[in-house]
Amino acid sequence: MKVFSYREVKAEEVTEEGAAKIKVRWLIDEKTGAKNFFMRMFEVEPGGYSPLHTHPWEHEIFILEGEGTVVSEEGERKVGPGDVIFIPPNEKHQLKNTGNQKFKFLCLIPSTK
Amino acid sequence: MKVFSYREVKAEEVTEEGAAKIKVRWLIDEKTGAKNFFMRMFEVEPGGYSPLHTHPWEHEIFILEGEGTVVSEEGERKVGPGDVIFIPPNEKHQLKNTGNQKFKFLCLIPSTK
Repeated sequence: MKVFSYREVKAEEVTEEGAAKIKVRWLIDEKTGAKNFFMRMFEVEPGGYSPLHTHPWEHEIFILEGEGTVVSEEGERKVGPGDVIFIPPNEKHQLKNTGNQKFKFLCLIPSTK
Repeated sequence: MKVFSYREVKAEEVTEEGAAKIKVRWLIDEKTGAKNFFMRMFEVEPGGYSPLHTHPWEHEIFILEGEGTVVSEEGERKVGPGDVIFIPPNEKHQLKNTGNQKFKFLCLIPSTK
């Protein structure tokens, strides 16, 4: 068993094109011993966003703190703490901080991505 | 894309032997469209606990609220909001609410379990 605070895991700047003011902590990945899926935490500063992009793997997201907007082909939706988002494979998507404080969420992906 | 609050998902009593005062909400599963892994939220009342058990699949856990204790073959650890737990396959484990308020956590499992 491994037990730790998310604060012990380094927050790394997301440098992918189209991203701004967003950091990621890889909380559980292959180094932790995970084989099937990985847990990341994203922290977005006010005005920041993830890239508007698509890829052949899904996202399972849980919003922890702050106010944001999730953008997809179907339009935009405001999201906040306790909201759950499932983004299927190959669907275009983006998450933006549209509030005044940090916007934090967990985003899990399959290891096969 | 699917967006909803965890509150919209029914909290079902965990009836497995060895469990007490614990409910589960299946937030993302095959009905949501997930194929690789599933997201559940557990809510444990003060004094409640999950079964002390083992199974051949892993857990990826994120503590949301309250105070608890995670028990494994390696001993006990106190956990609280922001703590991350990785329980490898086949390791005996149990989560208990050892605080005075609700103890809530996300627990994800592979779909192949």
